[in-house]
Amino acid sequence: MQRLTVELEERSYPIYIGEGLLQDPELLLGHIAGKQVCIVTDDTVAPLYLEQVRALLSGREVLSVVLPTGEAYKNWATLQQIFDALLGHRHDRRTTLVALGGGVIGDMTGFAAACYQRGVDFIQVPTTLLSQVDSSVGGKTGINHPAGKNMIGAFYQPKAVLIDTATLRTLPAREVSAGLAEIIKYGLIRDPAFLDWLESNMASLRSLDSSPVTEAIARSCAIKAEVVGADEREGGVRAILNLGHTFGHAIEAHQGYGTWLHGEAVGAGMTMALAMSERLGWIDHEHYRRAVALIRAAGLPVAPPPEMGVDDFLRLMSVDKKVLDGQLRLVLLRSLGEAVITADYPSDALHDTLRKDYP
Amino acid sequence: MQRLTVELEERSYPIYIGEGLLQDPELLLGHIAGKQVCIVTDDTVAPLYLEQVRALLSGREVLSVVLPTGEAYKNWATLQQIFDALLGHRHDRRTTLVALGGGVIGDMTGFAAACYQRGVDFIQVPTTLLSQVDSSVGGKTGINHPAGKNMIGAFYQPKAVLIDTATLRTLPAREVSAGLAEIIKYGLIRDPAFLDWLESNMASLRSLDSSPVTEAIARSCAIKAEVVGADEREGGVRAILNLGHTFGHAIEAHQGYGTWLHGEAVGAGMTMALAMSERLGWIDHEHYRRAVALIRAAGLPVAPPPEMGVDDFLRLMSVDKKVLDGQLRLVLLRSLGEAVITADYPSDALHDTLRKDYP
Repeated sequence: MQRLTVELEERSYPIYIGEGLLQDPELLLGHIAGKQVCIVTDDTVAPLYLEQVRALLSGREVLSVVLPTGEAYKNWATLQQIFDALLGHRHDRRTTLVALGGGVIGDMTGFAAACYQRGVDFIQVPTTLLSQVDSSVGGKTGINHPAGKNMIGAFYQPKAVLIDTATLRTLPAREVSAGLAEIIKYGLIRDPAFLDWLESNMASLRSLDSSPVTEAIARSCAIKAEVVGADEREGGVRAILNLGHTFGHAIEAHQGYGTWLHGEAVGAGMTMALAMSERLGWIDHEHYRRAVALIRAAGLPVAPPPEMGVDDFLRLMSVDKKVLDGQLRLVLLRSLGEAVITADYPSDALHDTLRKDYP
Repeated sequence: MQRLTVELEERSYPIYIGEGLLQDPELLLGHIAGKQVCIVTDDTVAPLYLEQVRALLSGREVLSVVLPTGEAYKNWATLQQIFDALLGHRHDRRTTLVALGGGVIGDMTGFAAACYQRGVDFIQVPTTLLSQVDSSVGGKTGINHPAGKNMIGAFYQPKAVLIDTATLRTLPAREVSAGLAEIIKYGLIRDPAFLDWLESNMASLRSLDSSPVTEAIARSCAIKAEVVGADEREGGVRAILNLGHTFGHAIEAHQGYGTWLHGEAVGAGMTMALAMSERLGWIDHEHYRRAVALIRAAGLPVAPPPEMGVDDFLRLMSVDKKVLDGQLRLVLLRSLGEAVITADYPSDALHDTLRKDYP
């Protein structure tokens, strides 16, 4: 088992990574303060892991809430089901919510924990590769609004993150690829040596070999923890974690949430950010080519949907949370392994990027 | 003008109290960082003060959202109107929300600010006596759930609180009394000398004489600021601010939110808390009689609705946020001017309090 810490003073918390962690009751119980626990999961994960997690919680008053699966349900009506269950079973301020599932479950459960009685404890138990390396760490929680993804939410940190890599064995290959998108992102924004390592290990990562998977998750979480520790509420550097996400969110919104997986949209979005970085002369074509080859090798799309035009992108990107005083800030690469967030680019460069033929 | 500070380290903020503060653009503009401002108010306050506040904001991009008036609308559907307006007008993370109105507007606007794009600035401009002395200070925000009041919310501090006592001139007498309930509360929990002062000044407070009203608001806010500064997230002492509120919330829920004013329910609820404190031998009958006389002199009810039985109270109080691990904690008086929060009372004392004939 590997153990990392997200350093946020009194809100610091551990991330545990290893195979079979959900066999160990001590790990989970050690982070539950009260008598009441509410496991929140979805109807895909519940048949696979709900009873296993419930079995870890003997002696506690355990409630479970099983939500419909998917990004399309990441909204207020679904969130309300969590509140209804908690209030219906008289869960008080000392209750602990356990988010068992992927990013949608983690984001909604975290937001429910942030809002229920103005804040209760929660623990992340991510079961997808994408949520293990990204959304379960860092305290971004929320729901979607018809006008934009994650527009309603809170920064609210979990008490612990438990990553059992055994849960990846039940994950469809398409979702493994989606998780690899975020893993590649960490190399692109912060760690060129990790990119080299990923190029050498992509095949064994896609086949979920235990040792490289644990290593990739731990390196990803370490980078994320470091960035979040430096800038919890995204006043500055944290925004680099959104490489490819502004383009990607526009793709997701255009196609309808859930049609493209988030990681797939990020794969195409990172390709676009790389293309724009090359257009600005910040990275050279060989770096662009290598990075795009790695994204493709992960099984990800490297082009936006052909039906999306420049206007679609501009309209959908204008509600991005990185827009400040009317200016769209983008995360781009100054060099391979060094991301910046900037609104200082010629608008032509953006337009040309949006109308480019990919890949 | 009086100026107090709520001391919460990097979240500290000023409270300004005085007549005519809404004539002074500097005061409001000094706390607005970005170009965009969204004034949130209701259809009672809008015709009275919306244009006056809007006029203070020249040079900014000003949006206003006018919500239906009343506690019955303190719910998700109404909150959604704020999000829809902000997103419809592309307000970004640097926007500032201005809560112009009573406690319902302040609580909902603050919660909207807490959640919009995971948190934007907001300023409280309370226009009712109750919100000026209570809900606008301290960062409790939220909405109601059918199963309980303020069950969904956040601790989220404003950037400033602007209390213009001139706005009280348009307040119905019944709402002045409701505000006096919370003012009396501060004396009961923390400041016996303030109780003496209130006994001498009740008539001029009810007729809204400027000098005593400013004094009463400032003393109330000073006590609230001190308690909140010691315990922002209500881990302990802050709960004493809820004297009478557990009984009062049950009354409000039973009668339907908005039927009794919050302050009226708190008036009756404080009477019940006083009665239970006397029953436990913590205050003597003369103190009980004096306090109840003061509540009555403020124009407030000193008895719960006759149709509410013991079972109604127990059922409705069981969802109180002060319930921990199944135990209902109550705020009671150890002596006049000294509140405690405790679950350590004989259940008979509670039952007898609930079935007592009041006053």
